[in-house]
Amino acid sequence: MKCRKCSKTAVIRLRQHNTAFCEEHFNEYFEKRVERTINEYSMFNKSEKLLVAVSGGKDSSVAWYVLKKLGYTTSGLFIDLGTENNTEIVKKISEKTGEELLIVNGKQYFGGLTVAEISRIVKRPTCSICGLIRRYIMNKVAYEKNFDAVITGHNLDDEVSFLLGNVLNWQVEYIKRQAPVLESNGRLIKKAKPLVWLTEKEIYVYALINRLTFSTERCPFSKNASSLKYKKVLNELEITQPGVKLRFYKEFQKKDLFGSDNEEKARLSECAICGYPTTGKVCSFCRLEEMVKDAMGKQED
Amino acid sequence: MKCRKCSKTAVIRLRQHNTAFCEEHFNEYFEKRVERTINEYSMFNKSEKLLVAVSGGKDSSVAWYVLKKLGYTTSGLFIDLGTENNTEIVKKISEKTGEELLIVNGKQYFGGLTVAEISRIVKRPTCSICGLIRRYIMNKVAYEKNFDAVITGHNLDDEVSFLLGNVLNWQVEYIKRQAPVLESNGRLIKKAKPLVWLTEKEIYVYALINRLTFSTERCPFSKNASSLKYKKVLNELEITQPGVKLRFYKEFQKKDLFGSDNEEKARLSECAICGYPTTGKVCSFCRLEEMVKDAMGKQED
Repeated sequence: MKCRKCSKTAVIRLRQHNTAFCEEHFNEYFEKRVERTINEYSMFNKSEKLLVAVSGGKDSSVAWYVLKKLGYTTSGLFIDLGTENNTEIVKKISEKTGEELLIVNGKQYFGGLTVAEISRIVKRPTCSICGLIRRYIMNKVAYEKNFDAVITGHNLDDEVSFLLGNVLNWQVEYIKRQAPVLESNGRLIKKAKPLVWLTEKEIYVYALINRLTFSTERCPFSKNASSLKYKKVLNELEITQPGVKLRFYKEFQKKDLFGSDNEEKARLSECAICGYPTTGKVCSFCRLEEMVKDAMGKQED
Repeated sequence: MKCRKCSKTAVIRLRQHNTAFCEEHFNEYFEKRVERTINEYSMFNKSEKLLVAVSGGKDSSVAWYVLKKLGYTTSGLFIDLGTENNTEIVKKISEKTGEELLIVNGKQYFGGLTVAEISRIVKRPTCSICGLIRRYIMNKVAYEKNFDAVITGHNLDDEVSFLLGNVLNWQVEYIKRQAPVLESNGRLIKKAKPLVWLTEKEIYVYALINRLTFSTERCPFSKNASSLKYKKVLNELEITQPGVKLRFYKEFQKKDLFGSDNEEKARLSECAICGYPTTGKVCSFCRLEEMVKDAMGKQED
């Protein structure tokens, strides 16, 4: 198969777009796609300070690298929660981008406990605990250090898999929050996902072509994650219906059937403990801290 | 595994309900479930005349049998479109129920052409042509013979597979029409699906236990049908998330996020050719007839 642009041998075929590209033109396509996504949703501009949440995986590494390449002002944030040992990897991405890397020890909030330990103590799924802690810390660091937006590497496969899971359970409150950009609101800093229109495969190929260092290890807790099952079945459907994933997410965005989460934002108040936004009196992060402290206190008794 | 009711050996395990039944109690459960569905949605009552659309497959055969057993006034309608040769089978179900069977030769409308031939002539998918013709004839027969409702054997697997397909493409106008009962509106006769909460497996087992005659042959045109692919992936998800199908459809019904099709019904007018309801000037059945006539005319020229 030949590159659609220059007829060199293609390195990637994109069935969903009925096209194929060589290395050079894939890079061009990829970067244009990111830039277009940023502009389409008015995500951020070049004068804004972006905090890219990096895990060491391909998606966030690519997000950081491509934003820097496109001329945005970025720093990386790595939150160490004791699940993976990716500190050296994220340092290499920081070297590659030439941008500052912030490393936060997430375990400090919970007396050195790992996510797995916290999850056992409070009897809630590891992924839900991990997500809660990461989202809180990302936002807190962004707010305290005056960043304008938190950037995550969520890709099209992540988004369609969330969307399918949320639709299968008709969790409208989650569906509403699936927008590619969620605007700032007081101490809640804007969140944006500039890779939202690119698939896992495209991001992987981009990372390889551009010689990025990234971890290929899966989170050890993801083994039975429903999101992986949703990804699997969506990829199965994609084989016979190329573009089904893209269409699913595109029509969802276009038709805007569920409205945004503005209503919910209007109901946000300050957490009585930490002052960060919450829909209740005490935010779920502080409640988690309390639960862990209580449980640890009891163990010591 | 034992029957949850009498501790005899179970013949079926229902993981989605976390239960199991022997033959006797499965029949009891099944028939109660149908009766409850009919009442829950006020589908029809025992004084109404029901026209059960039968194909010879397990679903419609079970629908007819169970409705008769529950004391409803039923007739069967078999539309012969030359796709399957199930006339003898539907006659046996008619004998088993002791109720009248109407047989309509659907090919008469199209000069003896089969669905496959029509589909080739008008260059549209066979399943879409077949569905269009069947829905039109069912309604026409019901209207002309003063039936109060048309009954189809759609089961939970059908419904969740339609729903998934419609959601993946966000086809809201189809989603709105997925209700278990669609009320009458002038010459558009009420349609009801009393098996909507029962799975394919449950219906199959019920058919076996009650010694119903049914065809196990799949429609020859269904091989590449997307609905079968959706069923497959939903069944895959069901393995690790028992009840996901039931929940998907139940929450959809409960939350009623897309509204009903009443708006659309208000826009219905009479087809200029046949007088049956349509959203345009000429209904899609009459347009199909015209297209086939035109094409045949050209062939003869």
